[in-house]
Amino acid sequence: MTKESRRISALMTLPAAEPDSYFEETAPPRTLSDLEDKVAKFIQIHRLIPGRKVVLVTSGGTTVPLETQTVRFLDNFSAGTRGATSAEYFLAAGYAVIFFHRQFSLQPYSRHYSHSTNCFLDFMDVNESGDLTVNHKYTSKMKQVLMQYRKAKEESLLLMINFTTVREYLFGLRSITRIMAPLRHNAMFYLAAAVSDFFIPENKMVEHKIQSSGGGLSLELEQVPKIIRPLVKEWAPEGFIISFKLETDPSLLSEKATKSLNTYGHQVVIGNILTTRKRIVTLFFRPEDAPGPLDIVMSDEELKQEQEIEMKIIPELVHCHDAWITKSQAFSN
Amino acid sequence: MTKESRRISALMTLPAAEPDSYFEETAPPRTLSDLEDKVAKFIQIHRLIPGRKVVLVTSGGTTVPLETQTVRFLDNFSAGTRGATSAEYFLAAGYAVIFFHRQFSLQPYSRHYSHSTNCFLDFMDVNESGDLTVNHKYTSKMKQVLMQYRKAKEESLLLMINFTTVREYLFGLRSITRIMAPLRHNAMFYLAAAVSDFFIPENKMVEHKIQSSGGGLSLELEQVPKIIRPLVKEWAPEGFIISFKLETDPSLLSEKATKSLNTYGHQVVIGNILTTRKRIVTLFFRPEDAPGPLDIVMSDEELKQEQEIEMKIIPELVHCHDAWITKSQAFSN
Repeated sequence: MTKESRRISALMTLPAAEPDSYFEETAPPRTLSDLEDKVAKFIQIHRLIPGRKVVLVTSGGTTVPLETQTVRFLDNFSAGTRGATSAEYFLAAGYAVIFFHRQFSLQPYSRHYSHSTNCFLDFMDVNESGDLTVNHKYTSKMKQVLMQYRKAKEESLLLMINFTTVREYLFGLRSITRIMAPLRHNAMFYLAAAVSDFFIPENKMVEHKIQSSGGGLSLELEQVPKIIRPLVKEWAPEGFIISFKLETDPSLLSEKATKSLNTYGHQVVIGNILTTRKRIVTLFFRPEDAPGPLDIVMSDEELKQEQEIEMKIIPELVHCHDAWITKSQAFSN
Repeated sequence: MTKESRRISALMTLPAAEPDSYFEETAPPRTLSDLEDKVAKFIQIHRLIPGRKVVLVTSGGTTVPLETQTVRFLDNFSAGTRGATSAEYFLAAGYAVIFFHRQFSLQPYSRHYSHSTNCFLDFMDVNESGDLTVNHKYTSKMKQVLMQYRKAKEESLLLMINFTTVREYLFGLRSITRIMAPLRHNAMFYLAAAVSDFFIPENKMVEHKIQSSGGGLSLELEQVPKIIRPLVKEWAPEGFIISFKLETDPSLLSEKATKSLNTYGHQVVIGNILTTRKRIVTLFFRPEDAPGPLDIVMSDEELKQEQEIEMKIIPELVHCHDAWITKSQAFSN
């Protein structure tokens, strides 16, 4: 393989592709129709329940494969904590939840026992009758989690759909939001996934594992289309849409969040900084909805008690969503 | 931020850095001395047991951060199945195991219940006395797994150490192999981790999240030093060393595996192809050790019964390791 063919080239100075041309030029993932069937069935159930609100929670990072037969990929840092935790609080607030998440990232309920330093086998005992039981120390909390998990399952309140690549994410997001659109104002979109800003178009990808024998590696990536624009304008124009801004440099946050609201015209941007995201987030609103941003902060005491900031974020958003539903109904009467 | 400063540049045509200069120019991870303490204690226990063999199993993919405050990273595809499964078979064969793995990748024993489509909460029941028990359908297998897990724990046969970045992997590998070196021929090194071939040196990394407002992204990465050379020659020259070659193009495998053995002079290369790696692997040996490579193949019947190819790989390697210990002892007498 020559050095030239190892060079994955792209048109460096082009702006982000238009979403329309992205979807035209990219093959849809094989699993898309299966996803659409599942989501359509789920929405059919919940549309029939008066006042039922449905939220799409996206969670975890997307991957950008560097080879068609993928050995290497770019990824975005995210264990999926924000999304998985938020999904639980939305369920507690009476929402039906579509949890669109990175495969193997944290999930609602099971998150309490995965990605932890304790293996769940450490919780298990064998009793006199030879049954496997959970050690009494852990029973009470695990029983509570199990009950919530079962309720969500039995009442069909939680639909789990996963993605790995940014392509699966983008196609999946378009399908899910379009299928949710008939819910009108009762639909909420909570876009917590860490989506790649850059990708390698399929036609510029090499097939086989990139060989390392010829020196370094030069990668040229293109910008991922800004999908929030068609989401707001076309796919679910009546939905209540919350996007996230994660930054590492605090001085950029407010400007970028405000710019995003101005550009796309959706309802809320949740701003957070990588190192403090479990302690403080800022909700940014459109000028017509609120006079200024709202800080949501956890006290040291609350953090010490292992309380989670989502217990404050979600009720705040539910409140905004309800106010917005009321306003929309008044408007259409 | 200008486009120029977003361009993470590197010296494209340089060959891989020498391992020595990599370790000189790179700051060691903060957790390294903790890792060294744990490994030293573990080795101290097992050195005292006559004939005790110890294997280092590396597992999972390493990450290459693109920013100091990491939002994005390059990764290598690996759930850690090969490493986690192999560790169980080494334990069953009487080895003590240091399991040096990517954080949150599959682990021995718990792997049977994580990364699965079933949430482990699906296995749980609440009995009449309010205890949490495992549903009888799953008890027998889970009890078996639990017993093996407990035995490994109680007899201090399994040491779990994790890494995330390629830097943590390289420094950790050097420390662990050096601490294991006094075990001489009783030490085995089973290098199943998917280690990045490319990285961005610390002094060329940007601090903050790369902004996407200015178009595409151009990345220039340098080659990761070939660490197996000092491992074989300096860190653990008397150890029994097995490396892996994963390719997607079958036509490259034999040549690359043979070249690796010739270049580094270690004992075994296990070659596998991405799409068939659970069905067939090929063991390549040095000409003085065996007349040719050995294919290890799973039949359709065995795969249907969910048997794992590691059940054949590990006994084969144990056999080679034993033969090699005997030979070395004869030689030193």
